[in-house]
Amino acid sequence: MRCEVVAVGTELLLGQIVDTNSSWIGERLARAGIDCNYQTKVGDNHARIVECIRLALQRNDAVIVCGGLGPTQDDITRDAIAEVMGVELVRHDHLIERIRAIFGSRGRDMVDSNLRQADVPVGARAMDHQPGTAPGLVCPVGEPGADGRSSKVIYAVPGVPYEMEELVDLEVIPDLQLRAGEPAAIVSRTLRTWGLSESGLAELLASRFDLLAEHANPTLAFLASGMEGIKVRLTAKAPTEREALALIEAEEAEVRAVLGTYVFGVDDDTMEAAVGALLEDRGLTLAVAESMTGGLVASRMVDVPGSSRWFKGGIVSYQSDVKFDLLEVPAGPVVSEAAAKAMADGVRRLLGADVGLAITGVAGPAEQDGQPVGTVWLGIAIGETVEAVHLRMPGDRKRIRQFGTIQLGDLARKRLLELTNED
Amino acid sequence: MRCEVVAVGTELLLGQIVDTNSSWIGERLARAGIDCNYQTKVGDNHARIVECIRLALQRNDAVIVCGGLGPTQDDITRDAIAEVMGVELVRHDHLIERIRAIFGSRGRDMVDSNLRQADVPVGARAMDHQPGTAPGLVCPVGEPGADGRSSKVIYAVPGVPYEMEELVDLEVIPDLQLRAGEPAAIVSRTLRTWGLSESGLAELLASRFDLLAEHANPTLAFLASGMEGIKVRLTAKAPTEREALALIEAEEAEVRAVLGTYVFGVDDDTMEAAVGALLEDRGLTLAVAESMTGGLVASRMVDVPGSSRWFKGGIVSYQSDVKFDLLEVPAGPVVSEAAAKAMADGVRRLLGADVGLAITGVAGPAEQDGQPVGTVWLGIAIGETVEAVHLRMPGDRKRIRQFGTIQLGDLARKRLLELTNED
Repeated sequence: MRCEVVAVGTELLLGQIVDTNSSWIGERLARAGIDCNYQTKVGDNHARIVECIRLALQRNDAVIVCGGLGPTQDDITRDAIAEVMGVELVRHDHLIERIRAIFGSRGRDMVDSNLRQADVPVGARAMDHQPGTAPGLVCPVGEPGADGRSSKVIYAVPGVPYEMEELVDLEVIPDLQLRAGEPAAIVSRTLRTWGLSESGLAELLASRFDLLAEHANPTLAFLASGMEGIKVRLTAKAPTEREALALIEAEEAEVRAVLGTYVFGVDDDTMEAAVGALLEDRGLTLAVAESMTGGLVASRMVDVPGSSRWFKGGIVSYQSDVKFDLLEVPAGPVVSEAAAKAMADGVRRLLGADVGLAITGVAGPAEQDGQPVGTVWLGIAIGETVEAVHLRMPGDRKRIRQFGTIQLGDLARKRLLELTNED
Repeated sequence: MRCEVVAVGTELLLGQIVDTNSSWIGERLARAGIDCNYQTKVGDNHARIVECIRLALQRNDAVIVCGGLGPTQDDITRDAIAEVMGVELVRHDHLIERIRAIFGSRGRDMVDSNLRQADVPVGARAMDHQPGTAPGLVCPVGEPGADGRSSKVIYAVPGVPYEMEELVDLEVIPDLQLRAGEPAAIVSRTLRTWGLSESGLAELLASRFDLLAEHANPTLAFLASGMEGIKVRLTAKAPTEREALALIEAEEAEVRAVLGTYVFGVDDDTMEAAVGALLEDRGLTLAVAESMTGGLVASRMVDVPGSSRWFKGGIVSYQSDVKFDLLEVPAGPVVSEAAAKAMADGVRRLLGADVGLAITGVAGPAEQDGQPVGTVWLGIAIGETVEAVHLRMPGDRKRIRQFGTIQLGDLARKRLLELTNED
């Protein structure tokens, strides 16, 4: 069962709105084991919407058209579908009543333009669920088969995300699964890594890749994702979710055996979550002193659920005098080994934490104290050790901050991994 | 001149990554007056990438293919373009050297898999700019016309956003504009507002809206954008960028006359940039104490270019004892008027700043000290005044943090606007 998503709206093409709906639908289709090989965006233009739906029907069993079901003149998805089906639109009284009732429940009167939302192509039906004023549509296309179902189908759902989500989950996916007959599931898992380049990962995993290319199930893919690390995605397809999961788990074990501690997390686990888990396991608390990153490291620590158990807080020592006066950094250049060490030790002392982390560097645009852009010093104070690490990073201001943030987390992770629970 | 965007990557179809690149490119194309009528997403599948590029060439003058230029086995955009062009790939020595040099500057060795990134279809060329290890490609298709240019063109850019953005701005758009010959420009400007709901804005601007509907140039649109404020977007089209700009500027004056100080910035100006400009104008410095937002406010202050002139730094007092010990918050509940005031005054004193801001609240998921989720206290210490403001906010953890951040900035902006330069 193959299903294409067609997102309708000129604002999507102009970049005024990012089309998150297609991604959301893609994730839901994958989870249901339905292949989604294409997603298309098209503007509010009758001929081009018709063309996109026709093409999508040619190369798929089903199409989900998202958007263009509103009450205004530029909402023309209904008309385009009617043309593809070769039928007229007919106004349904029960839909008018339903729409009127929705307005009533919001304490408002329905205006005439909303009548258009009660139009349905002949042979199609409105979906039973209706979270907003726009009914979703199920539109059969082609001759019915032995099971009485049409050979292909167009679904139309509104572009308002919460309305779309409800209709896809409650109407579209179940109908697609019924049509699919043979149920199938696609399961993905992402291993997050740090410390190797994308090509370095590919080389280490070359044997897995070669092996997997023959089967093509599970598949492996890499994705560099800034301060979220470099992701290794495993995707498996099987008749049931359980079998797909079993395939994933076997492959994950193989990949982990190769990558070892380069893997810091799974799926949505951030580097900061990995650090937090190690701290909690070892009964330690953390404080962070930041210059170049200006609070980015602390805010990501706070984003970890349960971080109040191990994260004390931080100091953003952006101007040099805050470093000298508050953190007792010795006089001298503030992008230096001495400054990074003093910051890590100072914030630990000041906030009463067990572990202190620090980052100071030149994020640009200009060099500082004769140090080039991209020069970064990380500091860590843990037990008796106060240590600093020097880095040179490529990229612009934003990128240097992001890489500094994940590098600092990775330094903490490595040092915490070296501590046994007995320490 | 019509240009389609084809985004390549199975992760885009599976919804593991939202395709923001196409939106970004669409915005850039619109600004350059180039029509973008379709955007397509396709997975890492050779036959389907070839099919999408062929179709895009059929219905457009140009195609931008985004993604699939990495060093790994699933990066197959180069091969697909070569097939569309009906040519072989050839490895370019000067690209190998360029890629090796990029690795060298990062203190790393190039591995063999990166050699694939030096492959270019015969007849195509690598772009001059190269921000990452993947060269962008310019691939002519079809017979050359009287001007010596091919009738159509495929551009290939990497999927890494900052690499893609640099190559689209510096290579693709200028090349497309040269090809377009007859220039047309679409210009947009966004006014960022805070303090009114979307419908409140629509009501205030109703007369502008009615007027503009007849002309439809410029157009107005609203967009709620979390801690970036509620945006009012003005878009104008004209034969030249200058004429489009003149239309925008006249309309902007009208809109500003209605909205007054609800407008805090233009285009990419953040609330924090507005606060920074006021501080700098009045010769004041700022320090921030954060609990609930955990460094988010400080990190956004640091994101403002030139912030080192007015931003001293901040304290993330996440655990209560940091509030008591370091900021001298009086014993008692830490989500309170007294705590917000003490934090604002304490951080100002501790960091030697003129203005202190503070935020403490319950972001959830659970209530705290009997205070419901969404309870927030903002504090500001400025001159002789130390003040706290109480808020109740809807939404989840992330939304409460974001709204708290922009509300705190808006409080500072209002108080700074009340100060005359003489104060």
